[in-house]
Amino acid sequence: MKNLLIMKFGGTSMGSAERMRVAAEIIVEQKKIRRVAVVVSAMSKTTDLLLDTMRHAELGDSATVQANLRNLLDRHLATCDQLLNIPDSEGHLVAASDAIRSLITEFERIARGIAILGERPPRSMDEAVAIGEQLSAILLAYYLQSIGVDAQPVNAAELIVTDAVFGNASPQMDATRVKCADRLGPLIADDIVPVVTGYNAATADGRPTTLGRGGSDFSASILAAVLDAAELWIWTDVDGIMSADPRLVDNVTVLSEVTYAEAAELAYNGAKVLHPRTLAPLVEKKIPVWSKNSFARQKPGTKIVSHFDEPKGVRAVTSMSDVALIAMEPSAALSGTRMMARSLDALALANVEILVFSSSSYRQSFCLLIRKHDIPVALEALESNLSIELAHHYLNPIEVDEEVGLLAVVGEGMRGIPGLAGRIFTAISRENINIIAIAQGSSELTIAVVVRRDGLERAVRSVHKECGLGVVQA
Amino acid sequence: MKNLLIMKFGGTSMGSAERMRVAAEIIVEQKKIRRVAVVVSAMSKTTDLLLDTMRHAELGDSATVQANLRNLLDRHLATCDQLLNIPDSEGHLVAASDAIRSLITEFERIARGIAILGERPPRSMDEAVAIGEQLSAILLAYYLQSIGVDAQPVNAAELIVTDAVFGNASPQMDATRVKCADRLGPLIADDIVPVVTGYNAATADGRPTTLGRGGSDFSASILAAVLDAAELWIWTDVDGIMSADPRLVDNVTVLSEVTYAEAAELAYNGAKVLHPRTLAPLVEKKIPVWSKNSFARQKPGTKIVSHFDEPKGVRAVTSMSDVALIAMEPSAALSGTRMMARSLDALALANVEILVFSSSSYRQSFCLLIRKHDIPVALEALESNLSIELAHHYLNPIEVDEEVGLLAVVGEGMRGIPGLAGRIFTAISRENINIIAIAQGSSELTIAVVVRRDGLERAVRSVHKECGLGVVQA
Amino acid sequence: MKNLLIMKFGGTSMGSAERMRVAAEIIVEQKKIRRVAVVVSAMSKTTDLLLDTMRHAELGDSATVQANLRNLLDRHLATCDQLLNIPDSEGHLVAASDAIRSLITEFERIARGIAILGERPPRSMDEAVAIGEQLSAILLAYYLQSIGVDAQPVNAAELIVTDAVFGNASPQMDATRVKCADRLGPLIADDIVPVVTGYNAATADGRPTTLGRGGSDFSASILAAVLDAAELWIWTDVDGIMSADPRLVDNVTVLSEVTYAEAAELAYNGAKVLHPRTLAPLVEKKIPVWSKNSFARQKPGTKIVSHFDEPKGVRAVTSMSDVALIAMEPSAALSGTRMMARSLDALALANVEILVFSSSSYRQSFCLLIRKHDIPVALEALESNLSIELAHHYLNPIEVDEEVGLLAVVGEGMRGIPGLAGRIFTAISRENINIIAIAQGSSELTIAVVVRRDGLERAVRSVHKECGLGVVQA
Amino acid sequence: MKNLLIMKFGGTSMGSAERMRVAAEIIVEQKKIRRVAVVVSAMSKTTDLLLDTMRHAELGDSATVQANLRNLLDRHLATCDQLLNIPDSEGHLVAASDAIRSLITEFERIARGIAILGERPPRSMDEAVAIGEQLSAILLAYYLQSIGVDAQPVNAAELIVTDAVFGNASPQMDATRVKCADRLGPLIADDIVPVVTGYNAATADGRPTTLGRGGSDFSASILAAVLDAAELWIWTDVDGIMSADPRLVDNVTVLSEVTYAEAAELAYNGAKVLHPRTLAPLVEKKIPVWSKNSFARQKPGTKIVSHFDEPKGVRAVTSMSDVALIAMEPSAALSGTRMMARSLDALALANVEILVFSSSSYRQSFCLLIRKHDIPVALEALESNLSIELAHHYLNPIEVDEEVGLLAVVGEGMRGIPGLAGRIFTAISRENINIIAIAQGSSELTIAVVVRRDGLERAVRSVHKECGLGVVQA
Repeated sequence: MKNLLIMKFGGTSMGSAERMRVAAEIIVEQKKIRRVAVVVSAMSKTTDLLLDTMRHAELGDSATVQANLRNLLDRHLATCDQLLNIPDSEGHLVAASDAIRSLITEFERIARGIAILGERPPRSMDEAVAIGEQLSAILLAYYLQSIGVDAQPVNAAELIVTDAVFGNASPQMDATRVKCADRLGPLIADDIVPVVTGYNAATADGRPTTLGRGGSDFSASILAAVLDAAELWIWTDVDGIMSADPRLVDNVTVLSEVTYAEAAELAYNGAKVLHPRTLAPLVEKKIPVWSKNSFARQKPGTKIVSHFDEPKGVRAVTSMSDVALIAMEPSAALSGTRMMARSLDALALANVEILVFSSSSYRQSFCLLIRKHDIPVALEALESNLSIELAHHYLNPIEVDEEVGLLAVVGEGMRGIPGLAGRIFTAISRENINIIAIAQGSSELTIAVVVRRDGLERAVRSVHKECGLGVVQA
Repeated sequence: MKNLLIMKFGGTSMGSAERMRVAAEIIVEQKKIRRVAVVVSAMSKTTDLLLDTMRHAELGDSATVQANLRNLLDRHLATCDQLLNIPDSEGHLVAASDAIRSLITEFERIARGIAILGERPPRSMDEAVAIGEQLSAILLAYYLQSIGVDAQPVNAAELIVTDAVFGNASPQMDATRVKCADRLGPLIADDIVPVVTGYNAATADGRPTTLGRGGSDFSASILAAVLDAAELWIWTDVDGIMSADPRLVDNVTVLSEVTYAEAAELAYNGAKVLHPRTLAPLVEKKIPVWSKNSFARQKPGTKIVSHFDEPKGVRAVTSMSDVALIAMEPSAALSGTRMMARSLDALALANVEILVFSSSSYRQSFCLLIRKHDIPVALEALESNLSIELAHHYLNPIEVDEEVGLLAVVGEGMRGIPGLAGRIFTAISRENINIIAIAQGSSELTIAVVVRRDGLERAVRSVHKECGLGVVQA
Repeated sequence: MKNLLIMKFGGTSMGSAERMRVAAEIIVEQKKIRRVAVVVSAMSKTTDLLLDTMRHAELGDSATVQANLRNLLDRHLATCDQLLNIPDSEGHLVAASDAIRSLITEFERIARGIAILGERPPRSMDEAVAIGEQLSAILLAYYLQSIGVDAQPVNAAELIVTDAVFGNASPQMDATRVKCADRLGPLIADDIVPVVTGYNAATADGRPTTLGRGGSDFSASILAAVLDAAELWIWTDVDGIMSADPRLVDNVTVLSEVTYAEAAELAYNGAKVLHPRTLAPLVEKKIPVWSKNSFARQKPGTKIVSHFDEPKGVRAVTSMSDVALIAMEPSAALSGTRMMARSLDALALANVEILVFSSSSYRQSFCLLIRKHDIPVALEALESNLSIELAHHYLNPIEVDEEVGLLAVVGEGMRGIPGLAGRIFTAISRENINIIAIAQGSSELTIAVVVRRDGLERAVRSVHKECGLGVVQA
Repeated sequence: MKNLLIMKFGGTSMGSAERMRVAAEIIVEQKKIRRVAVVVSAMSKTTDLLLDTMRHAELGDSATVQANLRNLLDRHLATCDQLLNIPDSEGHLVAASDAIRSLITEFERIARGIAILGERPPRSMDEAVAIGEQLSAILLAYYLQSIGVDAQPVNAAELIVTDAVFGNASPQMDATRVKCADRLGPLIADDIVPVVTGYNAATADGRPTTLGRGGSDFSASILAAVLDAAELWIWTDVDGIMSADPRLVDNVTVLSEVTYAEAAELAYNGAKVLHPRTLAPLVEKKIPVWSKNSFARQKPGTKIVSHFDEPKGVRAVTSMSDVALIAMEPSAALSGTRMMARSLDALALANVEILVFSSSSYRQSFCLLIRKHDIPVALEALESNLSIELAHHYLNPIEVDEEVGLLAVVGEGMRGIPGLAGRIFTAISRENINIIAIAQGSSELTIAVVVRRDGLERAVRSVHKECGLGVVQA
């Protein structure tokens, strides 16, 4: 759709009445010059509160459940009051308050069911957790109406069609395109701003799903793709994509531009700014993305583009601490390569993402880095596929090391920089941190280093400094 | 067999009448204190001459064939004369000369067949190339007899049973054990020294095979294993296993002891001193191996042992220049992990050894290093297994980079050395050499680095120096 | 355990106070001559009632839920009254009634949770459905006590350890052995009859599971195996294993003896008398199984044994109507064999059982028969594994034919009977029934025939008659 | 090429001077009405004589070699004389005789090389065996010239480009198209009849290959496809495709029309009339094929077409006696389906064609029929891929039964005939023949039956009769 801007407001950008007023200002501003559709996250901390409530419901801790529900209701009603308790908005106030109460009652029902059964079934989890986004969409939409902007809350369950992998569903783009055209098309044509819930979706037969944590970005990029948007702006509480995790490094810089490939690598290797899957829908149409700070609207943010004319060397140092290294070693009698192949196949079929894979030995031993929460699934996949080999000692017992962290240095132009690897590893060792595994591929824009977990933060700081990332980049 | 020493004399240690006399001296010396069996290579340059002759035969270049045959005959007859044209050895001289002539006639026949057909069929190649070892076994055995040592030339085709993979056969240990017991047992029991041809073997139904180039070491270790030898000594023309390739580095040192694992890694990553498969048969029985210099018998050489009580850090820097890097990159729609799995499976089934495998990317691209001569087989295996994916662009075209080299730093205790990786990479970059790929596994004793081919030698020198390998080690 | 008899009473054998009294008589009788442990199913129709209740709860139909709950309570309390409202049993009556009420309250709770969430999560389903067996175990155990037999109800969740595949869990025999020794060993040693719930189990960490419908037989054979029972008797309402489904064929006969292999084939191909997995735990120890009719205790039943000295020809004709035929056809360019291999691999990993597989064509098309309820999983597995091949027409679209039925003729000695195949197919065609696919393997004791669904019953009758199965066998 | 007829003359149609004259007559006849290109086999028995000569050469039996060579020369020179020793053809006679002598000298050279080496390397085998077709092409081409037809012998090594699988190469159609356009295009345009050698080809870099025995048909269909011929006529010594092997059955009938699919199935299952691969190149362009008898030119032959409007029921009964049944049975602990998948994958990679595959058992045993000559390759593939499973008894030892035969009943309309399967199996059992395995797929036009070898012929006769194939078909 020509001249369409999709803007997504994250949890902190929706975190209070004040923040929602800022979001509304931005919307008003942009709406003057183009068509606008909005995707919203739940108010900050709401999703965690919802999940926490369901956990306590499962355990039968009704006191906490009640306290959480009260907390949830109070906060949203208070925000509602702050936004809409203004002259001439009584109707909006009543309608929004009723909608909030009704949604929270809905959530309470699910929590009660979970409490009774003592388990949290995934479909109900997906239904329940999406309440957070519905609450914030209602608040923002009614507020927009109250200030004279035609707006309408829209539940993404009516728009985005996914498979039935609850908790981590994948969109079906063709079906989604049809639904979005039907439901959003007329709104946008009539100059009405749709305020769409991020994160949630539904299967073709209407069962609620979610796109995985951080999936609101993904919701926005899916909408941008199926609506052929001109741009996608992602409003967060940071100034853009940074040269490192600012919690670990003091003097991080904001990158003014990164490529899709760099942004994907950064997200994949631990940078929190974007959901890793966000960019995939946009690549084909080269829809540019801006990551912006709603707390500092004047700042330029980071622009994510298709490619650079000139590569820019090292861009950032990312890190992941919730990872584990799995090491496998065939005994002499066996073709290690076939074991590698079967291991990778088993992990692929079990949907375990392999962050790093490395092998360089006559013994054909190999190691691979996965996310910690994938350990049980990964081990089961490996052990069931290689059960005979393990039982009869053609393979040594699988070793899992959870005391590791991943540091990744990312940048498209990196390979042209002489001495970079040496400087990176010297920077790590300067801090007396043990390097466990290294992988750098030929066509890749990442050097991945697995280090002892307790040295990860120091390693990041040291490499960030060594690569000269702590100064403003062009 | 209690107190049995297997000694293998390499090509230079059999390279002249003088060298054979030294070998005989060593045999006499050891025979005083234990039982001895000997494995011999062809006289230096003989195998190359045989192969060259067959190549020219295939091309129909009969002039070169004739010249080579003359050269072959002259050299062996001259050596025979130098060894046996001594008082009271006339019988040996005649018998040995006759045997030499007869073997070379045999070879001439095969060369003629090749010339006629214009191709070099593998079975005939294996039959022909083993003539070299038969010639040297005859020379040494008759010389030993002439100096009063009971000795007998033995064709390994009567001892070692292999599969039918001509040119690179694998031993069948049980059948080999039976044959060795039958054929060598009585000789050794009667105090007769068997002088066994290295490198060659035969299938169970008697077709000639060879164990791959450098396979004489393997022959010796197979015999050591099936005969339960107490030790295996491998006589070469260098002082032992070195800290780097002495052609590249000036001040290499000889390692006094290495572990089986280190020796295997060194051989696998390019050190020429041992055939990579040599050690496998010995590991189970922990038969120690000595690598010794027949040109400097007083030097201690390198002892290869089961393990060290205390790891010794970096031991050596090896390098390989006849390698190629294959890079593969799935397009977005595909699970890269399954592609990796299928690629590895295809390569394993095609018997392509993967020297280095590395992957660390969101895009699930990966690269693997193979030997240059495996490129056609590897590409065919990958392309036929992934033909549909390649045809429909789920995979980008496979890239092959032949302008690369492998540098590997090896040592069991390496991981305990702080800062090592940094120093290695700094040493490489100090020489302005581009690093293409890196792999280091968790349980491994090798850091493998793929660099631009034209920087390989400088990289080796720089890393060797940086690791302090250029001084005498304890 | 020496001299231990495990007896399992099925749903109809536990179907009323009267039937439970018969079961008790049988127990008393056997207890005179050996040690006895008992496994019970839920009272007939109870499991269906429980499942129906949960289905209606999910749909929010509380009227049906309430009616079902009332029905459930009434029936069990009435049975309790009929069994225990006798002189001197007041204490048993009160205790049993209380236990029944408490279990049904428990079930009601789960139904309420399901109603609230609008979904039936598998763990809660397994917890809820096991209430049926707990009810019947309580009734039988208290009744046994009331007539002076030391007995104790035991929840199999305390005995049988399984994996976490809710609804169709697999036992972990070693852990189960330990638990059974701990929990049942002392009871049996003290001459107390354990009355164990069939069908249900628990994971190692205590989450409730079930063994799949009909799993009470499996429960009994698991206990027989881990307790080293001398025999296993399975009491049902039919006279034993029959020569065909008596609902389809008038004059079926009861087989006096079948082998494990025959019984497994019969169960696998549709005979309802035994859960297909029942026999696996017994094979190694050759524990004999009797299938007996508690409504006709004087009849001999069918004995299932390790093997026959003399094979007995065709034993039975089974049938399955809830099956579907999947047909796949590669286009010319592709190796059909690899497609077959990948299809089978995909189905194996998706846990789809392949009842029949057949291929006999130059075009390398193939077809396979699966259970109807596996269609979605099978199609998803095939389509995701072969997505590229399907998308680019290397494979024709997968065809699914649900209008088929399976007829299987089973018998160990069958292959020795001349003309059998001809007679079978003539018998089928005599009824004008179309044969769609045929598979008979070399070492197999089954001829499997896929026919049009609407001819299945007639085909069974015709083949049963043709094979002379409608007369009493020795 | 518009109006182009490719005619292929088989061995008997080239078997003597007389036969060649007939072939020439046919060519002259057709050439009046359209463009003609010809493909020729070697004179009958010549290929066997060439192969026999090389076998004896390998064994060193020079007497037989010399006798064969003399035989070869005499027969071709005699034929040459009979054809060309006519007035005004002296030039042709001399030229043809010289060419024959020169080709046989060439063959003698290769036989000598084989004798010297004592092995028959595949590339030289392919070079040598193609001499037969070159001889017959020379004879026919010179004879055509002598009777005034412009003709030219063409070695297919200049036309058909294949991979390097010596003895059974596969064509590379695009490269072949280019070469044929270059080499044959101008000839045909100039009204010159190319007389192309069947069976042989060459790799892109010029190494000689062959297309597998019977490959002359394939040569002709490759040329028809790349030259866009209007029709392909295949001249043999039988009246067309028959309802059974006339050596087994007295009253076979000639089928007037069959479909490509039927013809392929017939060839695949043993009918000798066409090389199984012949039809593949023609399917896309629907080029019709006639199988005709050069000994009875007036007879219509069999036309092979794309499809029938009305299916015609059972068409023929084929048989293969050089087959073996491989049976595999997993032990209890293993997923049989994965074993099936891995077995099929291993066989596919080893290029073993699976004629029949059948599985229908709870035990997941399965059996597959292969050609006898594939046994060693198949067993090696299965044993190496499943070595661990076999070693540890997860799989029972692989059983091979060579005393079996395959009978296949083929016809597109077969499935519509009620009672057919019954009649087929009754017909087999009437002869007291044991049926070992059966496979019929859903979409297939073949019922495949594996029987004891010694009953195969009787089974074919009985089924042929039962299906009413012994009468003239419309």
